[in-house]
Amino acid sequence: MEFKSKIKTIEWCGNYSRMVDQTVVPYEYKFVDIKSGDEMFHAIRDMIVRGAPAIGVAAAHGIILYALELAKTIKDGDTFKEELIKKAEYMKTSRPTAVNLMWACEKQIAVIKKSSSEINEIIENLKENGVRLENEDIEINKKIGDYGAEVVPKGATILTHCNAGALATVGYGTALGVVRSAFAKDNTVKVFADETRPRQQGARITTFELAMDGIPVTLITDGMCSYFMNKGMIDMVVVGADRIAANGDTANKIGTYTVAIAAKYHNIPFYIAAPLSTIDISIKSGKEIPIEERSSEEVTHINGKRICAEGINIINPGFDVTPHELISGIITEKGILRPDYNKSIADAFKAN
Amino acid sequence: MEFKSKIKTIEWCGNYSRMVDQTVVPYEYKFVDIKSGDEMFHAIRDMIVRGAPAIGVAAAHGIILYALELAKTIKDGDTFKEELIKKAEYMKTSRPTAVNLMWACEKQIAVIKKSSSEINEIIENLKENGVRLENEDIEINKKIGDYGAEVVPKGATILTHCNAGALATVGYGTALGVVRSAFAKDNTVKVFADETRPRQQGARITTFELAMDGIPVTLITDGMCSYFMNKGMIDMVVVGADRIAANGDTANKIGTYTVAIAAKYHNIPFYIAAPLSTIDISIKSGKEIPIEERSSEEVTHINGKRICAEGINIINPGFDVTPHELISGIITEKGILRPDYNKSIADAFKAN
Repeated sequence: MEFKSKIKTIEWCGNYSRMVDQTVVPYEYKFVDIKSGDEMFHAIRDMIVRGAPAIGVAAAHGIILYALELAKTIKDGDTFKEELIKKAEYMKTSRPTAVNLMWACEKQIAVIKKSSSEINEIIENLKENGVRLENEDIEINKKIGDYGAEVVPKGATILTHCNAGALATVGYGTALGVVRSAFAKDNTVKVFADETRPRQQGARITTFELAMDGIPVTLITDGMCSYFMNKGMIDMVVVGADRIAANGDTANKIGTYTVAIAAKYHNIPFYIAAPLSTIDISIKSGKEIPIEERSSEEVTHINGKRICAEGINIINPGFDVTPHELISGIITEKGILRPDYNKSIADAFKAN
Repeated sequence: MEFKSKIKTIEWCGNYSRMVDQTVVPYEYKFVDIKSGDEMFHAIRDMIVRGAPAIGVAAAHGIILYALELAKTIKDGDTFKEELIKKAEYMKTSRPTAVNLMWACEKQIAVIKKSSSEINEIIENLKENGVRLENEDIEINKKIGDYGAEVVPKGATILTHCNAGALATVGYGTALGVVRSAFAKDNTVKVFADETRPRQQGARITTFELAMDGIPVTLITDGMCSYFMNKGMIDMVVVGADRIAANGDTANKIGTYTVAIAAKYHNIPFYIAAPLSTIDISIKSGKEIPIEERSSEEVTHINGKRICAEGINIINPGFDVTPHELISGIITEKGILRPDYNKSIADAFKAN
């Protein structure tokens, strides 16, 4: 039985990109239409769209939008290609950590380079590729979900951190794709969702999308994970990823590393669920992953209201790196990669 | 050099108790006057006063208030004693986890039992004892602070969770008493404060009282602790306690156990700072400590606004238990107790 999710996060609509505005979830579920490349750059930077796979597709759409704009003033095909590649390189800088962003921009750059100098042909090729990446994302997530479901025990409670769901992807989700596939086979499976301060993607987005799809979810605060692990109430942890190094070290939303340490202490399996496009084989270890430092207001304010004293210091890293030795497996569309990750990741890329 | 803190959390004022209203910190720093026993019961239950040592003193004051009320209608000394002990037993039930509450009520019950049947004498004895507990609390905290300061490295960054500060006690604090004593010797010492969801005592109260006393503090979200430990930015952890079992297992604010596991993983010393009145030698291990389950709204709402989807589950344990094997030492007014805690705790009580 296949699980039908109601959510489609981002969609190419002929000559613009339509996406769920994730800054207002769960208060509103509304769509915004992004009609220029710069608008897309800001939508990614300001997290109107977020989640590594979703921002990859968003960037691919953004490059089509840049192409449509440049075509209005540039008539020479080679100049067009040159200027468009500059825009694509700029799009890569909208956020630093999630490598799917760079991966998707590279895919579009390859399309630009491979195309003839016919501007209309370049644009058609970019559109075709943008839509293909969009559709492939859902297919890949379903494969991730199905592989992951095989390691979910009957009636399991799955803890997740942040949101690696339908709303972090085009649809279905990676970590929550595993949940959806497992739930389709066994509707006694349930989820514990970490709130995920500072931006509360777990509280705001994960609870929202699971409630929307009818999957039971319990919201807990980030510090509570060990309490429930100790009580035997968590059977496994599955989270997403923003970038995975060649040795399996995984950058994901800040707080993931703490959950992984707690899981290890309690001998609870800790899985990453992510497409191969999240794996950056160009870097040897997590030490090379750039960690985004975000605005201090994300820590000091919630819903516009200050929650702490004035005159204090803030450091707000958006991500942390979970070392490979804490990871039981990396669930990909090519199956579950196991340690030694240097070998299993290299093998997955060879087979790709 | 002695550190002078500006804060006095609770004070007996002749015939009523004056306390800082901690539900409005850091937005306001205002005092409320508690003039009846039932008002005190609700002030403890609703966390207008919080922190194990502070609620102990608050309960002792509350029993004086009950005595003043009963004296208006009861003229027989023995009946008075009997009814007042019932009220003192009731006061113990205002919150379940912090044992200082039960300890302080027992101290007042002992005063009632020891006194003659002269109602005025009973009341005077209760007042005297209430004020003594209040003054002793600050003296004990200064001793805790001074013992603790001996194990704080030069220029250390101390991570703390929740608020075990001046505002969790009558003044000076336990965990933050260690910080104050260390800072008095070495003003390069600084603090990282966990936000401490759900009620954010770290963000609201710890940042407030440290900023007020001029001690540098960096606010982090609860999931971030491991990130900073991994970066070598945390030298030690010091937290308070709500109840410590005879074997050293320690109940403290939810999330403490997660921090302790992370500290262990990074080989960072993890200390509890608490007076002997927090140690419950009547229980063998942390398994016997009752854990308060608090309102789901503490998780689902912040500053009155919902932060998650509707139709989801919540579990909200107010405390967790850190097993003794994760604790480097328990800093008390009798010195730092070390493993084996069964022995060191028993010895401290013998010396008491």
